[in-house]
Amino acid sequence: MNTVITIGREFGSGGRELAKKIAARLGISYYDKEIVTEISKVTELSEEYIHSIIENNPPMILPFTEARSFYMSDTLSLQSNTVYAAQSDVIKKLAESSSCIIVGRCADYILRDINPMRIFVYSDDKSKIKRCRENASENEDLTDKQLLKKINGINKNRARYYRFYTNQKWGDIRNYDLCINTSDSEIDIIADAVVKMFKKEKVGE
Amino acid sequence: MNTVITIGREFGSGGRELAKKIAARLGISYYDKEIVTEISKVTELSEEYIHSIIENNPPMILPFTEARSFYMSDTLSLQSNTVYAAQSDVIKKLAESSSCIIVGRCADYILRDINPMRIFVYSDDKSKIKRCRENASENEDLTDKQLLKKINGINKNRARYYRFYTNQKWGDIRNYDLCINTSDSEIDIIADAVVKMFKKEKVGE
Repeated sequence: MNTVITIGREFGSGGRELAKKIAARLGISYYDKEIVTEISKVTELSEEYIHSIIENNPPMILPFTEARSFYMSDTLSLQSNTVYAAQSDVIKKLAESSSCIIVGRCADYILRDINPMRIFVYSDDKSKIKRCRENASENEDLTDKQLLKKINGINKNRARYYRFYTNQKWGDIRNYDLCINTSDSEIDIIADAVVKMFKKEKVGE
Repeated sequence: MNTVITIGREFGSGGRELAKKIAARLGISYYDKEIVTEISKVTELSEEYIHSIIENNPPMILPFTEARSFYMSDTLSLQSNTVYAAQSDVIKKLAESSSCIIVGRCADYILRDINPMRIFVYSDDKSKIKRCRENASENEDLTDKQLLKKINGINKNRARYYRFYTNQKWGDIRNYDLCINTSDSEIDIIADAVVKMFKKEKVGE
């Protein structure tokens, strides 16, 4: 049976870096943006557009029965659902084909039947700002307040997207096996610890 | 500087066992019921009564300005606050005197100024029932449903007590550095992983 880890992560928390490091230590595949490429092949929508649907233009939080047309066009709504369906297929196939780590994209929920190890990575505001400044030059002109607003906006969209498709709360402990606050921690040390927990438990050393 | 870990834990999650095992591996003190003994000495209230105030009769969730006398006698209210004050003093002194693990009793909040490693331990219902059956013979006569009701009642009181004295939500990721779901895990393996994370980070190997 494949070893599958899903990592939900707040933007700016270092979750992507942690995922890469755990994957490298365990010697298993790592999927993040690769999923978007696969969805693009299936749906024939551009990668940029898919990324925008997933990260920036999630469906509004409204029951399906309400008039969504006020908030998003029928075309966008349809495409959002098409993208989610393709995303589910791609993620399930990846998890079936080999041991892997899948970052974001409701993978913990999509793969619930195979019981992956579900990790959520988060951090405090100060740490998020610091990480974003280190990793992206395009934020240079922003004040800390402006940058935090941008970060919080992205995370709000992620939470909304997760809630819409899973009917669960993003970052609620009930939906994860391990929730890690990276604020005062080195990602390398966390990766070592997670691997220790994971290897013995799921792979069996 | 002392190494201090606080462990909040749902009843039935194995948090107490995990705390003991981490303490043993790190070779540091472990405080749980010992805190009640200390509070008893300071307040001259019996250990049983203090335990009852902390675990079974927490103050109702009402702002201090509201008429609490409908819900609890003034004497009980006064004693609850006396116990909390004594608890704060005892916990602060323990953390100052040596490296240690402190279980429950809002220690993460009481010690916030010294930045302890704050762990929260939780599990699903099935796992809680299993653990309680293994650990306590007094539950033999209860059905699973009755036992779960008892467990949930204890956890509801813990959440209420925590909320009342910290104004924070018990089990919310924001209040912890690490949240661990013990449902499908062995406590020994988790203890090994936590120690790995902790030793390097806080003690410096």
